[in-house]
Amino acid sequence: MKICQYITHGSNRPEARLGILTDDGLVIDPNNVWACDYEREGYFNFWQRANHVCPPSLLEILQTKDDPIDFLGECYGLYLFLEKVGDLTLKDGTPIAFKTDDVNLRTPIDKIPNYRDFYAHEKHVAAGFKKRKEPIPEAWYEIPAYYKGPTHGFIGHQQEVLWPSYTEILDYELELGMVIAKDGINIREDDAKDYIFGFTILNDISARDIQKKEMAVRLGPAKGKDFCSVIGPVITTFDEFDFKEPNLKMTATVNGEKWSEGFSGDSHYSWAQMIAHVSQDEWVLSGDLFGSGTVGTGCGLEIDKWLKPGDEITLEVECIGKLTNKIGSKRGTR
Amino acid sequence: MKICQYITHGSNRPEARLGILTDDGLVIDPNNVWACDYEREGYFNFWQRANHVCPPSLLEILQTKDDPIDFLGECYGLYLFLEKVGDLTLKDGTPIAFKTDDVNLRTPIDKIPNYRDFYAHEKHVAAGFKKRKEPIPEAWYEIPAYYKGPTHGFIGHQQEVLWPSYTEILDYELELGMVIAKDGINIREDDAKDYIFGFTILNDISARDIQKKEMAVRLGPAKGKDFCSVIGPVITTFDEFDFKEPNLKMTATVNGEKWSEGFSGDSHYSWAQMIAHVSQDEWVLSGDLFGSGTVGTGCGLEIDKWLKPGDEITLEVECIGKLTNKIGSKRGTR
Repeated sequence: MKICQYITHGSNRPEARLGILTDDGLVIDPNNVWACDYEREGYFNFWQRANHVCPPSLLEILQTKDDPIDFLGECYGLYLFLEKVGDLTLKDGTPIAFKTDDVNLRTPIDKIPNYRDFYAHEKHVAAGFKKRKEPIPEAWYEIPAYYKGPTHGFIGHQQEVLWPSYTEILDYELELGMVIAKDGINIREDDAKDYIFGFTILNDISARDIQKKEMAVRLGPAKGKDFCSVIGPVITTFDEFDFKEPNLKMTATVNGEKWSEGFSGDSHYSWAQMIAHVSQDEWVLSGDLFGSGTVGTGCGLEIDKWLKPGDEITLEVECIGKLTNKIGSKRGTR
Repeated sequence: MKICQYITHGSNRPEARLGILTDDGLVIDPNNVWACDYEREGYFNFWQRANHVCPPSLLEILQTKDDPIDFLGECYGLYLFLEKVGDLTLKDGTPIAFKTDDVNLRTPIDKIPNYRDFYAHEKHVAAGFKKRKEPIPEAWYEIPAYYKGPTHGFIGHQQEVLWPSYTEILDYELELGMVIAKDGINIREDDAKDYIFGFTILNDISARDIQKKEMAVRLGPAKGKDFCSVIGPVITTFDEFDFKEPNLKMTATVNGEKWSEGFSGDSHYSWAQMIAHVSQDEWVLSGDLFGSGTVGTGCGLEIDKWLKPGDEITLEVECIGKLTNKIGSKRGTR
């Protein structure tokens, strides 16, 4: 399944809702599906029951269902049943599915408790340390290092990338994102696959001039990263990859010209290793986002090509889709 | 005022509640104060009204009141009135204040949206770079650098410090913490004082062996810091310092022996500079915690003294209080 968040054209509230994107161009709303089913079964409080069983929030589903992939499959099955019997709307006209042309997508999850972005592709790491005229530190081979980003800076497909007032050098980073399925602590590498919900595309937008200063002080990036990150358009659930870590072709295209190409499987560390590492004496939470780090050639810094305001950037990852954003104008200074 | 969170001895739920700690050894519960007042005024739904006006959560008060310090002063005034008229409990016996002997304190805020820890004391920074046989990077003097920690690892006064399975070298860090009063973006340095709610004591517990590896990769600390940080025992509100950034004497004592002493005013960067820097094109949120960074001599790494399981560490900061914790035993490996 492909999980998304959608907002209908002309909606009078900016609240996005959980959806399932189908291959034939529909966005199914699981909350509406349950409400429709409870209504046809004759319940007075059909909305209350639908909200209780299936809230319109992926995070809440991950936090409360033992097997969220299985549960979302059940929602899809209920949709197919209602479609078969011809109940495609509630009595007040609320549809249980929308044409993709009638909606905009947003970030595919409503809230991310923690965001950890790794640095797991050796080719990208080597390119970075070569620029500093230093070898890759030994520690990189010993532990899967990561930085932590705030969780309020995420935007989704077709939303505009913020160009902060304080940077001249804005860059993209082509990454795979992984969403955690359930809470866990001290997770063994062999058990880690049970904690993967699915994969999304991550564009870790970076302000290179200030990032360079920040990383010199060794506390990691902050203003160089935290203003904007992009995820979407969907999360492809782990069952679509037979519950095995996939090797996916990844490309970045700017104004129609291919700039980057790599494979997610080139990572030095597996997702299972990252999960086991992070979860040592620390809770990993449902809905947490892990980023793979940039794949080799996956950013302007490596290939010496630079974004400018108005550019359109598309990251494409096999089995997930295309994540397209326009680069905004530089913000006015204070 | 001194703001805390308390839990009564023998409470059947682990939920801490907002309190105001008085100099004469009482913890006033503002939510109970309002309920008591609505009940004596004859309202049927006195609890509902109290929860609406004054929820038992500091974060919610910061998020919803235009002037939270003024509002908490009003709650204290209402307590004084009820004390004067002799209404010290609700009709069911629920007290509006407790003796400090009858409660335990917890972290002084219920939830922290974002935690950013700076590195603003030059003496501490110089000691760290000297150990690496490097000069302080020029960038340190250009921007107030910080790392971001997760917000699920905080404990309070007299709770036990976790010693993770993966470290041999556990250390403390003596820091001042500052809590943000209200949401803001692109805050000018001159306006930044309006965004300070108050100050607390911060013990940034660190696992030095893994932190060293992590910082070598330049993404900042993660497993070296994220398992446990301590704040408390109270937040002293900014009005107690006449809304001016204070210079406070700070000490750390281990098993009764003084190990560290410094002054908060020795910081290279002011809180106003930090707030202005972080808030460039990024929201700073009510309840966010800023750490000053370790004051000079304020950790074992600088003075080559090391904590061991069972030690009792007390950080004391003038006008705030004493934050005492016992160091736990090393966790078993997986």
